[in-house]
Amino acid sequence: MNAKYTIGLDYGTNSVRALLVNTSNGQEVSTAVWTYAHGEQGVILGRDPNLARQHPADYLKGAEVTIRKVLAAARRSVKGFAADQVVGIGVDTTGSTPLPVDAAGQPLAFQERFDTEPAAMAWLWKDHTGVAEAEEITALAAKTRPHYLAKCGGTYSSEWFFSKILHCLRTSPKVAKAAHSWVELADYVPAALTGTEAPDQLTVGVCAAGHKAMFNDDWGGYPDEEFLGQLDPRLAALRGRLRPKAATIDQAVGGLTAAWAKHTGLQAGIPVATGAFDAHLGGVGSGIAPGALVKIIGTSTCDMMVAPSGQKLADIPGLCGIVKGSILPGFYGLEAGQSAVGDIFNWFVNYIQPGGKAGSHEALTAAAAKLAPGESGLLALDWNNGNRTILVDQRLTGLLLGQTLYTTPAEIYRALIEATAFGALTIINRFEEYGVKVEQVLNCGGIAEKNPVVMQIYADVTGRPMRISRSAQTCALGAAIAGAVVAGVYPNVEAAQRRMTGLKPQAFRPKAKAHATYRELYALYRTLHDAFGTKQWKGGLHGVMKQLLEIRSAARAG
Amino acid sequence: MNAKYTIGLDYGTNSVRALLVNTSNGQEVSTAVWTYAHGEQGVILGRDPNLARQHPADYLKGAEVTIRKVLAAARRSVKGFAADQVVGIGVDTTGSTPLPVDAAGQPLAFQERFDTEPAAMAWLWKDHTGVAEAEEITALAAKTRPHYLAKCGGTYSSEWFFSKILHCLRTSPKVAKAAHSWVELADYVPAALTGTEAPDQLTVGVCAAGHKAMFNDDWGGYPDEEFLGQLDPRLAALRGRLRPKAATIDQAVGGLTAAWAKHTGLQAGIPVATGAFDAHLGGVGSGIAPGALVKIIGTSTCDMMVAPSGQKLADIPGLCGIVKGSILPGFYGLEAGQSAVGDIFNWFVNYIQPGGKAGSHEALTAAAAKLAPGESGLLALDWNNGNRTILVDQRLTGLLLGQTLYTTPAEIYRALIEATAFGALTIINRFEEYGVKVEQVLNCGGIAEKNPVVMQIYADVTGRPMRISRSAQTCALGAAIAGAVVAGVYPNVEAAQRRMTGLKPQAFRPKAKAHATYRELYALYRTLHDAFGTKQWKGGLHGVMKQLLEIRSAARAG
Repeated sequence: MNAKYTIGLDYGTNSVRALLVNTSNGQEVSTAVWTYAHGEQGVILGRDPNLARQHPADYLKGAEVTIRKVLAAARRSVKGFAADQVVGIGVDTTGSTPLPVDAAGQPLAFQERFDTEPAAMAWLWKDHTGVAEAEEITALAAKTRPHYLAKCGGTYSSEWFFSKILHCLRTSPKVAKAAHSWVELADYVPAALTGTEAPDQLTVGVCAAGHKAMFNDDWGGYPDEEFLGQLDPRLAALRGRLRPKAATIDQAVGGLTAAWAKHTGLQAGIPVATGAFDAHLGGVGSGIAPGALVKIIGTSTCDMMVAPSGQKLADIPGLCGIVKGSILPGFYGLEAGQSAVGDIFNWFVNYIQPGGKAGSHEALTAAAAKLAPGESGLLALDWNNGNRTILVDQRLTGLLLGQTLYTTPAEIYRALIEATAFGALTIINRFEEYGVKVEQVLNCGGIAEKNPVVMQIYADVTGRPMRISRSAQTCALGAAIAGAVVAGVYPNVEAAQRRMTGLKPQAFRPKAKAHATYRELYALYRTLHDAFGTKQWKGGLHGVMKQLLEIRSAARAG
Repeated sequence: MNAKYTIGLDYGTNSVRALLVNTSNGQEVSTAVWTYAHGEQGVILGRDPNLARQHPADYLKGAEVTIRKVLAAARRSVKGFAADQVVGIGVDTTGSTPLPVDAAGQPLAFQERFDTEPAAMAWLWKDHTGVAEAEEITALAAKTRPHYLAKCGGTYSSEWFFSKILHCLRTSPKVAKAAHSWVELADYVPAALTGTEAPDQLTVGVCAAGHKAMFNDDWGGYPDEEFLGQLDPRLAALRGRLRPKAATIDQAVGGLTAAWAKHTGLQAGIPVATGAFDAHLGGVGSGIAPGALVKIIGTSTCDMMVAPSGQKLADIPGLCGIVKGSILPGFYGLEAGQSAVGDIFNWFVNYIQPGGKAGSHEALTAAAAKLAPGESGLLALDWNNGNRTILVDQRLTGLLLGQTLYTTPAEIYRALIEATAFGALTIINRFEEYGVKVEQVLNCGGIAEKNPVVMQIYADVTGRPMRISRSAQTCALGAAIAGAVVAGVYPNVEAAQRRMTGLKPQAFRPKAKAHATYRELYALYRTLHDAFGTKQWKGGLHGVMKQLLEIRSAARAG
């Protein structure tokens, strides 16, 4: 019997990746990356530092280029490989990255008149031009529809669907008028590959709609017309052109068109799965299951969990989102995250440039590894880019405490790593406080792959073993898994995960002595966290520096 | 009429300086520096990092070498100069730096059996081996003699006279037994120059005795026998061999011996003034007077004021010391200080080594100068070496708050400068809260001399003009002034100061807009100061990061 393969298409901030996977065992046969042609590293910037757009032509070109490359590479490396062994495609993207489309569902940016008009492009996830609109949406929802906010951490973000559309309506009347509707990138790509872009044929994924557009079956889909109309009558009108139902990743949006088959060399008609966000399919590709927290650790983190949707789940304050089916069909998808992890280490190395030649990530990591927990006397907060979970507050900043006249860069570097570990523990605790038990922690992403010192500190701080995903590209793998399910290779996502995902054999296990010290330090971290991060905290802080000195003395005494 | 000159001998931590001064106008004719021969850079260290000693032979050798050098230099530069135009000598030293002496007042270290015995050396000011004894003295005084502590900031330090002697009694029985008495370096040098070392001839300066040995005429000189006896019976016995009266710097201890005249080329019999500490004579050399705060800014600061001793002066909590006559005869001498100023900048440059080539003091200062107050969003506490005034707590540590992913080394450097300025303002405010009005601020020391950016920030933070002393060696100049007074050139210290001291013409004047921003930032500094530094503070800190962001926004908007 011939092996069956699927392709995961992973649309990142700067580039798109295709990953060709053997469905029988998850073997990653070939991969190809193409950096978007427009803008700087694929991002179109403007004079306003909040602006970040992408040209949708790059999405199509990227699919074509990378699919052809992975097929060519597979032909080279797998004896007898044929493109018709590829039986399905899955897609993950950044988001919320909505783009305006015409009545046929084609991106406005494809029209010559809009070819260089930023408002007609895709509004990349990190575009923050809609800050004012986000505040307005949050305020209105808090007043009239608090249940909308309860599923998205209490604050509607400037990064999200309606903030961006409302900002476009207010500031770019030509584009606003020309836009028949708006489509998330995660929905646009599968639609384009299958020719289902027309608004009445479009499949909307529940992941993007639920997490970023307040879509929920409990209240009939998108926010109601009255609510949207209070923001702008044109938003209310738009609602009528959006889809009433949303799909999960085990549902195909259609079959690959003949034109795309010709472009890529794939067989026409192979199914394309409903799209989802990269972190969510990264969860799938890491083997997410009830009780398993998947941490995707890069410049920031996404912390993903699932919970059976049959059981009653409390709203969990501070989570980014709780959406049924957003990760695994039939389960709540829970999304938390840290606004900066690798970015904090990068800041220290690239901006502060400490210690001359001893200031690389590698050198600082090696020096930090030699320090015992507590021996520096330092304590930091991991808020250089705000706090996403559990405080949901971008207007928080970094803090470093305990410096002496002899504090070294390696001590600070370790304190910053520890701060992100304390932030991770705070998220774990929040899940458990609301009844979602964290039985194992599965890590993936560049830092988890490459930095065992960080992983050991995470184990010691949290008191839990840290496991690492076998795959170095779990998002694309998750997309390929969705492709395998819609192709019928597996009856459901869990079955596909069992065969196609895995963990590295080595686990980072907590050391009892280190964990004991970190329990003391975490109590102090939590004091600072609550003191600076919450309105209700009242107390004294006289003990903080003293206790750090006592912990330091104990650590230095061994 | 022939010009008259005096010599100031300034005993620092690593070296001794002689300064030959024209008494008619303060002109600094020649100077010479000699680094002590023993130990590392003049300091004898041990395996215990708290240990720091000096060999008293270096004090005598240093006087001889440097006096000969300044005379030789004066002969070269001043036409017709003759050594007999030198009419007096003054001495300032570090302290408390006590040394054990025999019954003739000679240092035990001069005996061959003690030549390499650390306990027989001078116990340098920064020797902290007596930490436990200091705590014991503080505890006993707090319980039975609270008035002793009221004059020295509430805590008796491990750096001080009785802590060191008590530690020697407990740990070095041979030296303890051989020591007939103990002498401060500030008293030993004038005694040696004049042959008055014998315990019954010794002149004790009120500066050292009052600030470091709880000497006060109000309670009959040194602490009473009962108190000392409770610490150790041998301390009670020692009291009987200490002097009952203390002298001020306008009193001569005697005339230069014939032997010293021969060693140095000076005239025998010229008067030598009572010694005092470097910072106190630095105040004199800077032109200290009622209403003038003299800040000696180096690795740390000493902040000196005087107040008429006729008026009632409250005990000022947190001051290092309040001693009648310790700076100017007839005035209270008030000493405050910051545990680290230049040391914090040095830590950042030398330990953190930020920014590659852009990380020198010069480059960081230049970059920091271009920043507007508040625009970094940063706020720091200047506690990397604890807090001397007003919290009197060595167990405090540094804090930096407000970092983002884009914070630069120059922004941090400026925040550290600002933190030391906020610390300086806290001291000014403390003086004024207790009725000691600060009408002008006179700065001296390396940083005041060389870093106009720091001085402008101090002006902007405090809202007061910053003046700089004309002399780059105010301590030695102050000693030369004492020499001029005991020589009868002037009737008193103030008269000598009027002729021999001066300020640079340029003043750093506060800028209104910068000061307004710093008033806001200082309120936040004070919140952190009280929150982490005091036991009684209770409150919330949620506003701190937000307010820094608002101040930042306003600063960036211009």
